[in-house]
Amino acid sequence: MRDFLPADVRKREYVIGIIKEVYESYGFEPLETPAVENIETLTGKYGEEGNQLIFRILKRGEKLTEDLADLSKNSINSTNSLSDLALRYDLTVPLARVVANNRNDLPKFFKRYQIQPVWRADRPARGRFREFFQCDVDSIGSNSPVIEAELMSAVSEIFKRLGFADVTIRLNHRQVLTDILDTAGVPESLHSDALITIDKLDKIGVDGVDAELTQRGISHDAAIMLMEIFAKTQEILKQEGNVNRTIVSNLINIVSNEVLTQLGSILKYAGTASIVIDPSLARGLSYYTGAIMEANVPDLAGSLGGGGRYDGLIGMFGKEQIPACGFSLGLERILVVMDERGMFPPEIAASAPADIMVTIWSDETVADSLNLAADLRSQGLRVSVYPEPDKLGKQIKYADSIGVPWVCVLGETEIAANTVNVKNMGSGEQATLARNEIAAYIRK
Amino acid sequence: MRDFLPADVRKREYVIGIIKEVYESYGFEPLETPAVENIETLTGKYGEEGNQLIFRILKRGEKLTEDLADLSKNSINSTNSLSDLALRYDLTVPLARVVANNRNDLPKFFKRYQIQPVWRADRPARGRFREFFQCDVDSIGSNSPVIEAELMSAVSEIFKRLGFADVTIRLNHRQVLTDILDTAGVPESLHSDALITIDKLDKIGVDGVDAELTQRGISHDAAIMLMEIFAKTQEILKQEGNVNRTIVSNLINIVSNEVLTQLGSILKYAGTASIVIDPSLARGLSYYTGAIMEANVPDLAGSLGGGGRYDGLIGMFGKEQIPACGFSLGLERILVVMDERGMFPPEIAASAPADIMVTIWSDETVADSLNLAADLRSQGLRVSVYPEPDKLGKQIKYADSIGVPWVCVLGETEIAANTVNVKNMGSGEQATLARNEIAAYIRK
Repeated sequence: MRDFLPADVRKREYVIGIIKEVYESYGFEPLETPAVENIETLTGKYGEEGNQLIFRILKRGEKLTEDLADLSKNSINSTNSLSDLALRYDLTVPLARVVANNRNDLPKFFKRYQIQPVWRADRPARGRFREFFQCDVDSIGSNSPVIEAELMSAVSEIFKRLGFADVTIRLNHRQVLTDILDTAGVPESLHSDALITIDKLDKIGVDGVDAELTQRGISHDAAIMLMEIFAKTQEILKQEGNVNRTIVSNLINIVSNEVLTQLGSILKYAGTASIVIDPSLARGLSYYTGAIMEANVPDLAGSLGGGGRYDGLIGMFGKEQIPACGFSLGLERILVVMDERGMFPPEIAASAPADIMVTIWSDETVADSLNLAADLRSQGLRVSVYPEPDKLGKQIKYADSIGVPWVCVLGETEIAANTVNVKNMGSGEQATLARNEIAAYIRK
Repeated sequence: MRDFLPADVRKREYVIGIIKEVYESYGFEPLETPAVENIETLTGKYGEEGNQLIFRILKRGEKLTEDLADLSKNSINSTNSLSDLALRYDLTVPLARVVANNRNDLPKFFKRYQIQPVWRADRPARGRFREFFQCDVDSIGSNSPVIEAELMSAVSEIFKRLGFADVTIRLNHRQVLTDILDTAGVPESLHSDALITIDKLDKIGVDGVDAELTQRGISHDAAIMLMEIFAKTQEILKQEGNVNRTIVSNLINIVSNEVLTQLGSILKYAGTASIVIDPSLARGLSYYTGAIMEANVPDLAGSLGGGGRYDGLIGMFGKEQIPACGFSLGLERILVVMDERGMFPPEIAASAPADIMVTIWSDETVADSLNLAADLRSQGLRVSVYPEPDKLGKQIKYADSIGVPWVCVLGETEIAANTVNVKNMGSGEQATLARNEIAAYIRK
């Protein structure tokens, strides 16, 4: 977990600003949920590995004392009994809870975005932290392929505006994976084991996946057949031309027509977004039920974001089963790549804390300097005041150290003449001006 | 802890936007720190009661297993051994840690603002929650009274811009309290007990404070004398005229000249901010060393914010003792009062998720509708698309339910004629337009 100094925050806010603007241009509305959820809300939603990575909060007061007494009596090793709350692990499960709890206050189709931190007790890596921001966009209430298409189109627009030219969004469907697993002869009881393993294809490669599949009790023959299907796909994905058509035609004998039609509609509706169908894309989270998606660039091993359809999740928190689909962008991953590639506009990369700094000459003139600062602020400038009387040289040096482009020197001469000496820190040029001329002068 | 639906988020963002703008106009820079801190960073910084209210995070993996084994063997009731991390309790202690850790990367005078949630395991009340946002502004590196004045002036400007006309900022100094306690005959070892009690004056009244002082072992005579001094102050505060001058002259025989001069300078430099000196103001946190401040309105029992000077805190995290002073606004308190008084501008109180909604006629025309939406977005509009083909009446009804002011009907006739039917949801008026005319038409 990291601190963000001012230069970092500005970069983060620049990216978040673009993400919000695009989401809002598609009619998505902001939602925020608390960092802390009841532990039962989170457990059992993220698959075997996810459960282990949840940060749990210790009970407090009497409840804790009771649990500790029980524990020392019975020597049971149950962490659940000591913890009632947990830190948010993603933004999708809290959304499902909110939708189930507020069904009557929300529109029939609820389109929301949410940009907040989540926490995972994971091992940190490049672009991966224990506290990180997700920028989620979800559409609730419809199972139309228009939803998937809009999400991918919005995400694609965000990348374009940030300056990415090489993002590919991969698209798959959980049913494609199920049908491939069936065809390869993997028994249904081992499907979720197989999916968790296949999800690591990017990280551990074909050999790693092959070994882990065998270890998880999937027959060597089935593993080989799976790997062959995926190797074939990877080969096609590297080709030129209409890759999606070739992949779909290769899937015709394995996957049901209905699912292929759905994928076709999504592709057709998503417009100019750069999408390829990748039958090996698995996504680790266990709540996905339909289309799954992931955005990648060549120079980052992990993804920049991903998502999918989860038609069964909201029903776990209420009586009604409501279809839903979403996409989540990883802010930190995007920032890592943008930093490495130098993609920030110059005004973000080098921004000053103020437009101008006002000096303080002596104890007697403090109020004059503060008045001048207030005056300049009312003219729309961001104004810093040197906090105490000091040698002029030291004040100028400080202004230079914080990168302020202009300094107002207010000494006894200036106060007597009711003028201000304005210094351009870049050129060294100085001008003596009336107070009401300053804003116009430095804007020019 | 609460969920914030879109209408709530918009109000929060409106207030946060104004706070940021004012802080930035004073040259403060943004900082963000992680929600989770090492537990040692937080313990011992907030006084006896604060310590109890920290949310602690359970250790994970092997470390937890070992601690649990120890626990069941030894039957010790130590919650510290089970927990290594904790949720941020305020934004001041994390700032002190950041300054101590990054001294060489930060300017000599570091002016930062920080708007983030904090967590306290407190009993919730009106405007008080277990997760709440603090909007902090702090100046590091100077002990000049210019600092206190600038903070109060910035905070005062924020309240003005939000539309508050009745905020009073109370000002006091820890040394004033110490001198009063000495004068009343409270032994130094009981000073912090006395301060904690006096801090509750707003909540439990004179009688409550009197009772609690006695209970904490402060002699009845001392308690009565203290109460008399404070009763006198309260009386003066209710008078017309130059209240601050009267209070200072009453303090001349009790408080050192140096401290009264400091308070006088702060008042003089703070310009138009509405400030009264209140010798009974205590502030609960134990890290304050100098001036203390609190902002109040008549219709809220708690404060809208508060702060003070803490010249000893940064030294607890590093070798160097660095002076510092800050003010923290409570976002939720401000929102509660603004909501009750109806202070939000109409465009915030009733805002729509999009400027316009596009209908979908049939499966065959989905792509046409999505194209139109993309077109309108490129003209700068926020556009929602009804997610699936449906009866036109239902689509219009949905548009109405989400408050979208305009609907674009795109049926077979319109597609054939390459036009769009645009409906004003307020007046019911309709117009048939070319695509490139729509943005200009609805803006008019």
